[in-house]
Amino acid sequence: MLATVMHAPGDVRYESVPDPEIVHPTDAIIKLFATCICGSDLWPYRGLQPLNGPMHMGHEYCGMVVEVGSAVRMVRPGQFVVGSFCLSDNTCPHCRIGFQSSCEQREFMSGAQAPFARVPLADGTLVATAEVPPDDLVPSLLATSDVLGTGWYAADAARVRPGSTVAVVGDGAVGLMGVLAAKQMGAERIIAMSRHKSRQDLALEYGATDIVAERGAEGVKRIRELTRNVGADSVLECVGTQESMDQAIRCARPGAMVGYVGVPHAVQLDGQGMFFAQVGTMGGPAPVRRFLPHLMELVLSRKIDPGKVFDQVLPLEDVAEGYRAMDQRRAIKTLLRVSA
Amino acid sequence: MLATVMHAPGDVRYESVPDPEIVHPTDAIIKLFATCICGSDLWPYRGLQPLNGPMHMGHEYCGMVVEVGSAVRMVRPGQFVVGSFCLSDNTCPHCRIGFQSSCEQREFMSGAQAPFARVPLADGTLVATAEVPPDDLVPSLLATSDVLGTGWYAADAARVRPGSTVAVVGDGAVGLMGVLAAKQMGAERIIAMSRHKSRQDLALEYGATDIVAERGAEGVKRIRELTRNVGADSVLECVGTQESMDQAIRCARPGAMVGYVGVPHAVQLDGQGMFFAQVGTMGGPAPVRRFLPHLMELVLSRKIDPGKVFDQVLPLEDVAEGYRAMDQRRAIKTLLRVSA
Repeated sequence: MLATVMHAPGDVRYESVPDPEIVHPTDAIIKLFATCICGSDLWPYRGLQPLNGPMHMGHEYCGMVVEVGSAVRMVRPGQFVVGSFCLSDNTCPHCRIGFQSSCEQREFMSGAQAPFARVPLADGTLVATAEVPPDDLVPSLLATSDVLGTGWYAADAARVRPGSTVAVVGDGAVGLMGVLAAKQMGAERIIAMSRHKSRQDLALEYGATDIVAERGAEGVKRIRELTRNVGADSVLECVGTQESMDQAIRCARPGAMVGYVGVPHAVQLDGQGMFFAQVGTMGGPAPVRRFLPHLMELVLSRKIDPGKVFDQVLPLEDVAEGYRAMDQRRAIKTLLRVSA
Repeated sequence: MLATVMHAPGDVRYESVPDPEIVHPTDAIIKLFATCICGSDLWPYRGLQPLNGPMHMGHEYCGMVVEVGSAVRMVRPGQFVVGSFCLSDNTCPHCRIGFQSSCEQREFMSGAQAPFARVPLADGTLVATAEVPPDDLVPSLLATSDVLGTGWYAADAARVRPGSTVAVVGDGAVGLMGVLAAKQMGAERIIAMSRHKSRQDLALEYGATDIVAERGAEGVKRIRELTRNVGADSVLECVGTQESMDQAIRCARPGAMVGYVGVPHAVQLDGQGMFFAQVGTMGGPAPVRRFLPHLMELVLSRKIDPGKVFDQVLPLEDVAEGYRAMDQRRAIKTLLRVSA
């Protein structure tokens, strides 16, 4: 089949690769309905993360099961499924407390920017719908696989509660999903930090009550003003740089949690600073599997529409253009349609 | 009166100072029943923290109110009171969510290693008992003022729950109080890290189920073995060095919280390391005021006996010997008796 391979920074090709096959009895093969490009795919694309040889790209996915290994019990061919970007057995001690992204057997999904993909640990990873969903819900179901699940985890880790004042640092797709999540969790005030009109508009649509365009010290000052100098109860850090983390911590009130979901790149936290600010942190790769049944239900019942975060839709074969558009910030997030 | 003044590292004197007086209408003057020396007093004593001139020492206290300012409404002369080492108004937004140690008017108590002391923000800081407690409960009531409140906060910040597996890093007085707190909160397993026989014994008495004498990588390995390679649900970091913080994080399971209450001295946390370990942190000066009514009630009803942590009792005038004993680790914690 043809699929997406990154050969070097800036060099993404849609080219011939071997068809995926069942390797372990716990594997499933799925036919993708849609896939997409992740902000984290841009790190190697921009040369900010090393590439060890050509890399089969894509870890966000939903589609139809076409084949399962002999040990698979929970899903069967013909079912529509969504799975997390973190593959998990869903039975180990870490999975059992809801941290499937630290599963003892954890693997990271790859090769999903393709018509077909192998999903290891299928029983613990995939969640099937009762029936094949209508086409118009596919983007939102795809979003639950990573970007929504990650924004949701940011809000969960930051302990957003009904009535909370929430600040969201980062207006990428994950940050926007964080706004949606905070709204669903009952936040009363949601302050989105964004300098881009289209992202501000989507943040407002997803439930933001205030937009702060300033960054750094000015941004912190604005949030202090908006909260009568108290700070936010919960802060969602959805970028992963030193600057964004510092900003997140300085927006937080004493006793607040910062939920951080952008992979930190060379981020150091000052123990004494956090101690006297009395700000807590919790982060990591999102345990999407924990949230998946709930999020899929919210989508299927049309209570949320996370699929709007895809502001560019391309046929899968144009994946290279999708990378360019996201790299140049012409697109927030690119959905790749897989032809039937 | 005579009171405790630190002039330089290693130079603590019991000498003449002015009697404390009401300065603000929100002040109270108390006559101390007992006071004590804190592990944090050893930082300047050891020259590890700068001293800006002679310093009136002591921030742990309980005793009788003898005078109140004109604005004080909640306590009156003749009442026995305990207060936190953090002075707070108990009405600001931070106090109202239980983070009185970040009160907008926060001050730190000082001058309590003395027969009399001024307590600013008396209404928000002091908690009175219904009657003057029996003498034998004074050490335990004194402990609630800081050392127990701080150990309790470590367990609270680490989110100890019934059935939890808890690791406690640090066998100083605060670590031992952390063991007591974890036990009270229903922890099933409490692993105390300690190399000293007398501290191990007290940890076991307070509820520790396991002792780990190893440190560093060996200590982490032992905790992994004891928890079937899962790690602890909650870790209490009660030291404040880079080594102890690293150890705490490495003992924690994914999803766990590290509650840290030792003031971090030059501690840096690696964002990416904590991200992939999926370990959260929450720390700071303990909001003892939040816990004080509950802890005092536990003492008054003789359900807990935190006063056992005082393994040396001296008359106040021998305070310099108390500093020496704690500095040389001959004493875990020194109580200073104030003569009537």
